[in-house]
Amino acid sequence: MEEFVFSYEMEVRDYECDIQGVVNNSVYQNYLEHTRHQYIKSVGIDFTELSKKGINLMVKRIEIDYQSPLRSGDQFVSVLRMERISPLRFAFVQQIHRKPDNKVIIKAMVIGTAVNERGRPELPEELMKVWGIG
Amino acid sequence: MEEFVFSYEMEVRDYECDIQGVVNNSVYQNYLEHTRHQYIKSVGIDFTELSKKGINLMVKRIEIDYQSPLRSGDQFVSVLRMERISPLRFAFVQQIHRKPDNKVIIKAMVIGTAVNERGRPELPEELMKVWGIG
Amino acid sequence: MEEFVFSYEMEVRDYECDIQGVVNNSVYQNYLEHTRHQYIKSVGIDFTELSKKGINLMVKRIEIDYQSPLRSGDQFVSVLRMERISPLRFAFVQQIHRKPDNKVIIKAMVIGTAVNERGRPELPEELMKVWGIG
Amino acid sequence: MEEFVFSYEMEVRDYECDIQGVVNNSVYQNYLEHTRHQYIKSVGIDFTELSKKGINLMVKRIEIDYQSPLRSGDQFVSVLRMERISPLRFAFVQQIHRKPDNKVIIKAMVIGTAVNERGRPELPEELMKVWGIG
Repeated sequence: MEEFVFSYEMEVRDYECDIQGVVNNSVYQNYLEHTRHQYIKSVGIDFTELSKKGINLMVKRIEIDYQSPLRSGDQFVSVLRMERISPLRFAFVQQIHRKPDNKVIIKAMVIGTAVNERGRPELPEELMKVWGIG
Repeated sequence: MEEFVFSYEMEVRDYECDIQGVVNNSVYQNYLEHTRHQYIKSVGIDFTELSKKGINLMVKRIEIDYQSPLRSGDQFVSVLRMERISPLRFAFVQQIHRKPDNKVIIKAMVIGTAVNERGRPELPEELMKVWGIG
Repeated sequence: MEEFVFSYEMEVRDYECDIQGVVNNSVYQNYLEHTRHQYIKSVGIDFTELSKKGINLMVKRIEIDYQSPLRSGDQFVSVLRMERISPLRFAFVQQIHRKPDNKVIIKAMVIGTAVNERGRPELPEELMKVWGIG
Repeated sequence: MEEFVFSYEMEVRDYECDIQGVVNNSVYQNYLEHTRHQYIKSVGIDFTELSKKGINLMVKRIEIDYQSPLRSGDQFVSVLRMERISPLRFAFVQQIHRKPDNKVIIKAMVIGTAVNERGRPELPEELMKVWGIG
């Protein structure tokens, strides 16, 4: 079974649903981003501090497989793990599972990089230390 | 009849509609904000320039009367005029009309102020000149 | 002091913030709507059931006073109470308070009505019983 | 050079930008969806008619490569073409180009299917006729 290091619970809000009565496809990206940001905060990394040093994290690619829709009122858990996939790129492997039946709703891979103060890709030490990918 | 000095045309996008098949109430605020920003740009005011001088425009109060809903695919025109309502406050009177029957969808009043570099309310000359409210 | 009968806790998500680094004005309407729907659910009213009987709840007017902005990562509590303001209209009095200092962020009044299966305004018994406004 | 059969022009709205001053990653999915729906409408397919026959179009997978960000006020053109990639699946190949320099902002592939009135995947004749993929 796939392992995840972080999980975060949320609930569908009615304004996130569209005419079909299901969560709009783009809203899952909001859920995924919020989960990543909560994870990064949980490991002690401060976006604002990084920004002040001129380091910006950015998403380069996203892949989402939609397996089953969430509906109004559904509760779900959003899980992730992080992998370094090249010297300059890392990937978040993310999934959303409905509660309480644990049905897989989406599977996603989000590939990111960091750009340093000279505008060049460079993963900062802060990230690599926390993620144990030095 | 009420007069407006600026009008801007838009079209409902499906992701803006909710389970009832109508535009979600909060989305009208997006339409209204976009119209105000297009208007401000049209009269030659540059938000970024104002910000650099430490001047920030901010909304203090909004009132919206919902008269009829917009639906998927509807085209509409968003109109406004500006009034100075006190030495430190201005109001945007805004309406959204459906096309082509001109049915009134919402009527809104948006009250704003500007805060200067010392954090005090003060309407900048740029605004007053353009709006003829000096 | 004003009394509220329902409170719901949320946290600002980064995608809800705009260029100024504060929650966009329209997003507060999402918070307010989600709070109302959670409240209505909490008192045992089922939107879907009401819809099947041809009864639709709708917002007719909203007033929001913006007192102070929420920022990335802020936690807040959204509170409300309900009042019948005329034979055919009810009002939600709503506020959002930042945590932990309890600073008032916005004050809002949301006026709604219900439309029956013949398209006429009529507050259904289910609402009046729960809200004790029969 | 890649060919596209449909193009649609839009402009970034300020509420779509986040703290970094660029369009939030999830908003591009809104742009892409709106473009697909405008395309589908342009070829004479009516979602509502399809729904009444019990046919639903759904997105199964999305891949987006983020090449360069859009900023406040940017104008852009969103282009697409359609391909049938298996008996039961079709793909929209989509790109967004900034105006007027034609810089590529994102490249995306959106894979969809249609589900018939018995809940089984089946591409309806309406689609295949229009797209010439019968």
